[in-house]
Amino acid sequence: MPESLRVHYRLHCARGESAEDKAVGIALEQTVELPARCVPANILTNFSGQLELLEQRADSIWEAVIAYAPDLVGGELTQLLNLLFGNISLKNGILVSAIEWPQSLLDHFGGPGTGIDGLRALTQVPAGLPLTCTALKPVGSRAETLADLAYRFALGGVDIIKDDHGIADQPTAPFTDRLAACQAAVERANQQSGGGSQYFPNATASPAKLPERLAAARDAGCRGVLLSPWLCGLDSLALARDHYGLAVMAHPALTGSYFMPHHGLTPELVLGDLFRVAGADASIYPNTGGRFGFSQETCEAINARLRGPLGGLKRAAPTPGGGMDVKRAPHWIRNYGPDTIVLIGGSLYVQGDVTDAARDLLQALGR
Amino acid sequence: MPESLRVHYRLHCARGESAEDKAVGIALEQTVELPARCVPANILTNFSGQLELLEQRADSIWEAVIAYAPDLVGGELTQLLNLLFGNISLKNGILVSAIEWPQSLLDHFGGPGTGIDGLRALTQVPAGLPLTCTALKPVGSRAETLADLAYRFALGGVDIIKDDHGIADQPTAPFTDRLAACQAAVERANQQSGGGSQYFPNATASPAKLPERLAAARDAGCRGVLLSPWLCGLDSLALARDHYGLAVMAHPALTGSYFMPHHGLTPELVLGDLFRVAGADASIYPNTGGRFGFSQETCEAINARLRGPLGGLKRAAPTPGGGMDVKRAPHWIRNYGPDTIVLIGGSLYVQGDVTDAARDLLQALGR
Repeated sequence: MPESLRVHYRLHCARGESAEDKAVGIALEQTVELPARCVPANILTNFSGQLELLEQRADSIWEAVIAYAPDLVGGELTQLLNLLFGNISLKNGILVSAIEWPQSLLDHFGGPGTGIDGLRALTQVPAGLPLTCTALKPVGSRAETLADLAYRFALGGVDIIKDDHGIADQPTAPFTDRLAACQAAVERANQQSGGGSQYFPNATASPAKLPERLAAARDAGCRGVLLSPWLCGLDSLALARDHYGLAVMAHPALTGSYFMPHHGLTPELVLGDLFRVAGADASIYPNTGGRFGFSQETCEAINARLRGPLGGLKRAAPTPGGGMDVKRAPHWIRNYGPDTIVLIGGSLYVQGDVTDAARDLLQALGR
Repeated sequence: MPESLRVHYRLHCARGESAEDKAVGIALEQTVELPARCVPANILTNFSGQLELLEQRADSIWEAVIAYAPDLVGGELTQLLNLLFGNISLKNGILVSAIEWPQSLLDHFGGPGTGIDGLRALTQVPAGLPLTCTALKPVGSRAETLADLAYRFALGGVDIIKDDHGIADQPTAPFTDRLAACQAAVERANQQSGGGSQYFPNATASPAKLPERLAAARDAGCRGVLLSPWLCGLDSLALARDHYGLAVMAHPALTGSYFMPHHGLTPELVLGDLFRVAGADASIYPNTGGRFGFSQETCEAINARLRGPLGGLKRAAPTPGGGMDVKRAPHWIRNYGPDTIVLIGGSLYVQGDVTDAARDLLQALGR
């Protein structure tokens, strides 16, 4: 493990643009934010980014590695994001492709509190079999309607029944009403079936309201929540983990604009590294072949960042969704392995009886 | 004012892609997130987006307008962002170009608490003259060093002296130490000069720490703070306004990836509409001709969204920065008008004595 935070960039240089100027510009822009001649020598050495590698990879494409002192992060995920891409998001041709994490930052941020093994324990799904997840929708439904759906999904054996990420605190199903109704419904189904289904309410909210939503979820008996980190902050994951003991499923809402080929952050960095390091136990991403545009290679890269060795952090569960269907689910589990959560929404609804649809899904997955 | 939230999209359709399918797909994806045939009729009518206009504008370019029920927002900025661009951020060729706001949402979110006139009152700058701002840096400097800089900038007459947005809670200058030292320094300078300089500390932090940073800033006597909404949430602006009575200068860190020509959110929508509606009194953006890439047209569009009529909300101050220099500042004020904050960092530092540099700036601006 490096002592520094080593960040890999793929630079796309316009005609006449110097790759070295561009790389050195990043190292200054993201740290001291002054021309080098205005920066005291000791600060330039210790706090500006240090260009460690610059190599041409293809016509107009260069790889750069810049090392940053972990102290620049100041122990905060907000500042980590700023250091990675704050000001340079406003420039062009800079793709942050990978991070080599120093152990000190991994230890500090802590990663998943529950992880794949913990989710298996919560849902009573033994190792070697995939987990299943679905979403309660559509927005506009009343709390009792959503609770009835939750009951029927749970009877069918879906392991994690989450709110759709667009269901927040709308007047048709306010958070508090929905929480009570859906949690009671899932508990009732578990009592009847002997199953271990879990309801994960969407707790995404403002900093002022987030703590009360998380406390309410815990107090209602929920063991986990859904959070959209790009809406309510990466730190919301750690808050749920540390202060409320909740597992967290992270949703990628609003992240898509970073995933451009020549500028941004790679999907595996955001939905893999960052979500896991910040505390996600499961990370939802749009599976290839669905209604979004990730390649299979990207999906596998996300899986690798969520489950591969990372300084002793627990493994997080890849949760491919977005247009998956029951028939293709076994195919994806063969590809991605059993330590995966199959997220299927619409394809269960179109079958009419969601309990039967859920049972079909479990059967298809050998459960 | 419309009763609905009317969102304008510029759709870039690939060969063979139907603009109508794409537009209807957005209306469903961002709301009910199910195929229309699975959605009860009353919900489809009242809660899915309603396509109101679809017109071809150029080869492969279409304009669409979709109306959403304000209830979908549920009164929360997190869900507003999700409704605008949550899932479709992961698709292609969708640019959210403008919003027509219903009065109900403007009234609910409230906009700037202080506004341009309030910032003038705080800093004692009469109408008709521009305000000035600079940043304390570089990161890695000790609190006393930053405080000494703050003192000297204030003596020179800079109106708003903010932390650089990358200065957070690093061990070299922890937030609490820096806050006390810099605020005392600016107060001391004001006593000597009779001026009204204000120190705006960077309070950007996790949901768990944000309230204590804002409370500390208020208790130290600060009248405003710097916040990066894309790091700590749009709601952080409202929190500072409502619970702590602080003015807010918003920083665009991490927003740049949305500003792509064929996919994303326009700069005037994010740094103009959204920041203002959420409560920013001043919005920093990278001025044209500096080290970032906005066109003058984009800068003027941001200014218009910050200062134009918007359902009775206070006007927010455009704060162009990012490579501005003292010599060109009068040019920009002639272009943008006096209700503008001139943000100059590096160009003051390179002159050596920052007090003299600040005086030169004020003189150039007719102050």
